[in-house]
Amino acid sequence: MAAYKHILSERDMPRKWYNIQADMPTPMRPPLHPGTGQPIAAADLERVFPGNLIEQEMSTQRWIDIPEPVIERLLTFRPTPLRRAYAFEKALKTPAKIYCKDESVSPPGSHKFNTAIAQAFYNKEFGIKRIATETGAGQWGSSLALACQFFGLELKVYMVRVSFEQKPFRKLMMQAWGAKCVGSPSQDTAAGRKVLAEMPDTPGSLAIAISEAVEDAVTTPDTRYALGSVLNHVLLHQTIIGLETQKQFKKLGVSPDVVVGCAGGGSNFAGIAFPFLREKIHGANVRIVAAEPTACPTLTRGVFGYDFGDLSGSTPLLPMYTLGHKFIPAALHAGGLRYHGMAPLVSQLTKDGLVEATSVQQLESYAAGVLWARTEGFIPAPETTHAIAAVVREAERAREEGVEKNIVFCYSGHGIMDLSGYDAYLGGRLTNYELPQSEIDRAIHDNGKMPPIN
Amino acid sequence: MAAYKHILSERDMPRKWYNIQADMPTPMRPPLHPGTGQPIAAADLERVFPGNLIEQEMSTQRWIDIPEPVIERLLTFRPTPLRRAYAFEKALKTPAKIYCKDESVSPPGSHKFNTAIAQAFYNKEFGIKRIATETGAGQWGSSLALACQFFGLELKVYMVRVSFEQKPFRKLMMQAWGAKCVGSPSQDTAAGRKVLAEMPDTPGSLAIAISEAVEDAVTTPDTRYALGSVLNHVLLHQTIIGLETQKQFKKLGVSPDVVVGCAGGGSNFAGIAFPFLREKIHGANVRIVAAEPTACPTLTRGVFGYDFGDLSGSTPLLPMYTLGHKFIPAALHAGGLRYHGMAPLVSQLTKDGLVEATSVQQLESYAAGVLWARTEGFIPAPETTHAIAAVVREAERAREEGVEKNIVFCYSGHGIMDLSGYDAYLGGRLTNYELPQSEIDRAIHDNGKMPPIN
Repeated sequence: MAAYKHILSERDMPRKWYNIQADMPTPMRPPLHPGTGQPIAAADLERVFPGNLIEQEMSTQRWIDIPEPVIERLLTFRPTPLRRAYAFEKALKTPAKIYCKDESVSPPGSHKFNTAIAQAFYNKEFGIKRIATETGAGQWGSSLALACQFFGLELKVYMVRVSFEQKPFRKLMMQAWGAKCVGSPSQDTAAGRKVLAEMPDTPGSLAIAISEAVEDAVTTPDTRYALGSVLNHVLLHQTIIGLETQKQFKKLGVSPDVVVGCAGGGSNFAGIAFPFLREKIHGANVRIVAAEPTACPTLTRGVFGYDFGDLSGSTPLLPMYTLGHKFIPAALHAGGLRYHGMAPLVSQLTKDGLVEATSVQQLESYAAGVLWARTEGFIPAPETTHAIAAVVREAERAREEGVEKNIVFCYSGHGIMDLSGYDAYLGGRLTNYELPQSEIDRAIHDNGKMPPIN
Repeated sequence: MAAYKHILSERDMPRKWYNIQADMPTPMRPPLHPGTGQPIAAADLERVFPGNLIEQEMSTQRWIDIPEPVIERLLTFRPTPLRRAYAFEKALKTPAKIYCKDESVSPPGSHKFNTAIAQAFYNKEFGIKRIATETGAGQWGSSLALACQFFGLELKVYMVRVSFEQKPFRKLMMQAWGAKCVGSPSQDTAAGRKVLAEMPDTPGSLAIAISEAVEDAVTTPDTRYALGSVLNHVLLHQTIIGLETQKQFKKLGVSPDVVVGCAGGGSNFAGIAFPFLREKIHGANVRIVAAEPTACPTLTRGVFGYDFGDLSGSTPLLPMYTLGHKFIPAALHAGGLRYHGMAPLVSQLTKDGLVEATSVQQLESYAAGVLWARTEGFIPAPETTHAIAAVVREAERAREEGVEKNIVFCYSGHGIMDLSGYDAYLGGRLTNYELPQSEIDRAIHDNGKMPPIN
């Protein structure tokens, strides 16, 4: 009988992360200090992040050792399975072989825990006592809640209001793991109060919540900020996904033709893609596809330039694809994909033509998610359904072309705490979001004078 | 480094179920026809169950082949991991080694899918088009929803009202998998309408919901009833849990001293326990512990006699420990343990002294669940916390006695769709339930003249 799951032994779990900065054809531009316009120095970030993570953020070393206490916690659920989706393939009548790298098996249910546990460790090691962070759908906040619990750190989470209200159970999960969670914008920070005064009914956004969390971190003793995506060190911690996937394919004796991930800030996408991008940079014939929501089309309709990571402009200027840091996406169920920017590393690799970006409408993504749930059984996160929709397109193309392709995607998280979106979809109450070009133009114009990148 | 997870290959997943009826020192008494008082015949059950499952229910054959289509679906998540709980052990300062057999990894998140997929297959094979069932916490209903989706069967689920209201996401999960779910008691059946007329504010109970589902099944064309616990064939399908656990311990080169499961109707308990009970019957020195809630203490305070499986008395009389079929347990968060009776096979083995029963208060079980969540990361189902509380007691005893015991328990399901109970516990809003003896006496007296068993 054919194998359903390809599982590595604990011994085979990677012990190093892969840093793609060592291999990029065009190096990433440096983040700039918004005041001086000069590349930021480590010292500029010291109030925000612990020194050891700043060092990692700036490293160009190809392989970075995973610390032993992090390995121990990863081993409680890693290596994660690579699952062959026979039933899904059959429903699609495709000759393609579809493989799912299942990151939903972590305790919080998504890939976010891979970096949460590393960040909590480095903060603890640096003598930090408390962390402030933001969360969109709640996957990141709950992952960091558990990681902070493991290392004895306090945590406060600013959760984007639309998700805070749609997903009360994520808040309860963070509380079960000992963290404090408030809806954002909140009354707890100057940044939050300012937004509430101007837009009392705002659904919130990741950019607003980041402003609040950063303000909290820099104004509270022994506290640092942690980010669940976008930054280099976050993407680095996720590369364990792709490194494992490579080993699993090697054992299978095949290699993927297409690698797919959904992309919000870019971390799960980078996690599965970067090790394969290394192969592609060295000549391998593999396509790398990032799937984003049509309602927040950073890679497909944004501009490549320097922009702030948050709404209030308190971060360094990052070299990335952006819709403008004042862009507030529609209240999508895929809260984790509602970010105006994209990780600088992913942005540069896309700019260089190594990554293909595609956008998916909400109805198409839920249709793909329901098909997955009813054939494979597992219910994907709304974010993950975007990757699945992109896989469906690839599988249908393979059927039309009569080509037997190997497609692998990152199953970034489960959706069983996000069922209200499925309910709305199945009840016919969801619509697609159309985003007029004028709205994008206005958001980018509102950005002000950001240094362009040619 | 020591191993965290003990994972079998797909090849090592058992291909047969174990039927403990072949090895019991005292055979189980036959179920009786309530009208005649005589042992029921297969024909008496034909309106309720498909013939192939009735045959299995009555079989005394030791090993029963798992059909190939069922094996295929089980392989998408089985064999399940046996996980060593190092962090939990450390927190308890116990010399005991604690192993968790993780049945939460199925798509619906619990052991219930093991029998759901088998029952859906047998119904389909017998030509049935539609199934009616009840569910307590929703674990069974959602498992059968997915199984029916896989085999193209319609499903209607009567969900105990207290859980229906506490756990709206379970209902959405059933809908995502294509099933119809109503709160019980409902207006859809005569049994439901009768209860609503008498007790409009009842939290409902499994016994009421069973009455509704059985009525639906016997009055609707091409429809049969399915039960998620209690019956012999259900327990049979769960033995794959214990059979895998045995193989995993064999590979470890050790054997468990204590095997623990929570017990509501008895199916996950039987699943992990029966293969080890076979060893015990043949002389092995292993203790088998069933943990039930103090608020529904069937094994620890019930009587061993013949009783109905449901409230309205529409089932055969089953030989079991019971609190009386009119007993309605308090509105515990552990909805899956709110059953007045206990599987006849488990009851007989307890009567014979092969199973030890213990009861756990709600606060003790949640304390154990929170300790587990904060050390091991995974958040257990409220039902599962009863097993964990019993493990804590065993681990503490091992510490006091200075004995290095191997303890294994069935992690029957995850609790991430049941977080309101954790919220209430952490917010100090949960209390223990005291159950006066007079209430038990009255419930048993109300039972009427049931044939006693000596």
